Amino acid sequence: MDKRRLETCFSPALFEAEVHTDSIVVIIDILRASSAICTAFANGVASIIPVAEVAQAKEYKSKGYLVAAERDGYVLDFADFGNSPFNFTREKVSGKSIVYSTTNGTGIINLTLSSYMTVVGSFLNIGALSQWLIRQDRDVLLLCAGWKNMFNIEDTLCSGAIAELLLGSNNFTTICDSTFAALDLWSLARTDLTGYIEKAAQRTRLRDKKLDDCIEFCLTPDFTDKIPVMKNGVLVNAVS
Amino acid sequence: MDKRRLETCFSPALFEAEVHTDSIVVIIDILRASSAICTAFANGVASIIPVAEVAQAKEYKSKGYLVAAERDGYVLDFADFGNSPFNFTREKVSGKSIVYSTTNGTGIINLTLSSYMTVVGSFLNIGALSQWLIRQDRDVLLLCAGWKNMFNIEDTLCSGAIAELLLGSNNFTTICDSTFAALDLWSLARTDLTGYIEKAAQRTRLRDKKLDDCIEFCLTPDFTDKIPVMKNGVLVNAVS
Repeated sequence: MDKRRLETCFSPALFEAEVHTDSIVVIIDILRASSAICTAFANGVASIIPVAEVAQAKEYKSKGYLVAAERDGYVLDFADFGNSPFNFTREKVSGKSIVYSTTNGTGIINLTLSSYMTVVGSFLNIGALSQWLIRQDRDVLLLCAGWKNMFNIEDTLCSGAIAELLLGSNNFTTICDSTFAALDLWSLARTDLTGYIEKAAQRTRLRDKKLDDCIEFCLTPDFTDKIPVMKNGVLVNAVS
Repeated sequence: MDKRRLETCFSPALFEAEVHTDSIVVIIDILRASSAICTAFANGVASIIPVAEVAQAKEYKSKGYLVAAERDGYVLDFADFGNSPFNFTREKVSGKSIVYSTTNGTGIINLTLSSYMTVVGSFLNIGALSQWLIRQDRDVLLLCAGWKNMFNIEDTLCSGAIAELLLGSNNFTTICDSTFAALDLWSLARTDLTGYIEKAAQRTRLRDKKLDDCIEFCLTPDFTDKIPVMKNGVLVNAVS
């Protein structure tokens, strides 16, 4: 079997949809959207309906859906919960379809809809996700959500950690400078990830807003074996 | 004196002109445009007229100018020379105004024209450039040219090396994730820059086209104290 191609993209603004129509795109937005989504699946959510616009989220709310919606880290007033993984408890989400709109994450999903498949990655599902990606026999693009289209450290580190697992399997190869950079930054950060993340601007933003209680959790590897994947406009678990 | 702000941008596609109207923007495209430009000034060029379009370059040629023009690494047939620093010898360029059009570099200059000032950086002028930037008392954006709008390793390493000098002066501060990443990648690469650059895709592209004879030279620090700066649409030496 030929090796599959692995690439990394550091910003949605650099994503070239037309290049990746045959690839699996992994969306990485670990502080906090992709970690929250993985946690919701770990806690038994049936599906997550991502919506980019607040108006759409409100409309779903009026129909009786549970709605997670935040802008710049803050929960919107009509929403049931925000963007912290700790919101998505088993009591609240198990067996339900919930609606999810965040500043960054859900808009990015829409960018990737012409790819072969869109999945959600984080440290929380990194082992299961990587094993699953290896089994798919598809090229993979790791798409870092960044922050307002800018490069960010935390998503880059997670992409480096995933890249290490994929390349280590010998099923993938890469000639992508972003992937090499992510691998090398991960090699520097891995022994003290919490300490390294201190320099990330998002670390400071979340601290300033008192929204940083979940950061340690978001850096936990293998909290779940769930793999959120887009099917017909809705995130479901790939292996349920 | 308040510390000036230092930021790094990994791709022209991520450059936000409106944020940097008061900043000095340093364009970094070390393989090979910014190294070639620095070499031309080291060898006494009077000025360089950057043009983005081939048609413009041809028009200048018909007026008698010396023209450097390449696309994807290859010299265009009407041009006097291409994009290798070795083309810009003292015999050819000393005292002259030459026209320069490259795949990537000259287009980027136009992006930055609303900034306070645009200068050209490379390893070749890194020490003089950094000292000059420290004296200007302006915020600085290090703009990596990348490759076809994608992140690249070589420009990132040069931006990390410049960032180290600026931050080391204590005149600058940063909260920019890209700058921290560039610094860390530079810390990994600095002891064997030639070896590290081996993983860069542009290294392979230049080797494949037999255009890689100048790479070692492009990684040489402090070959010149010239600082190419845009004035009235033309690159001149800032301190001549």
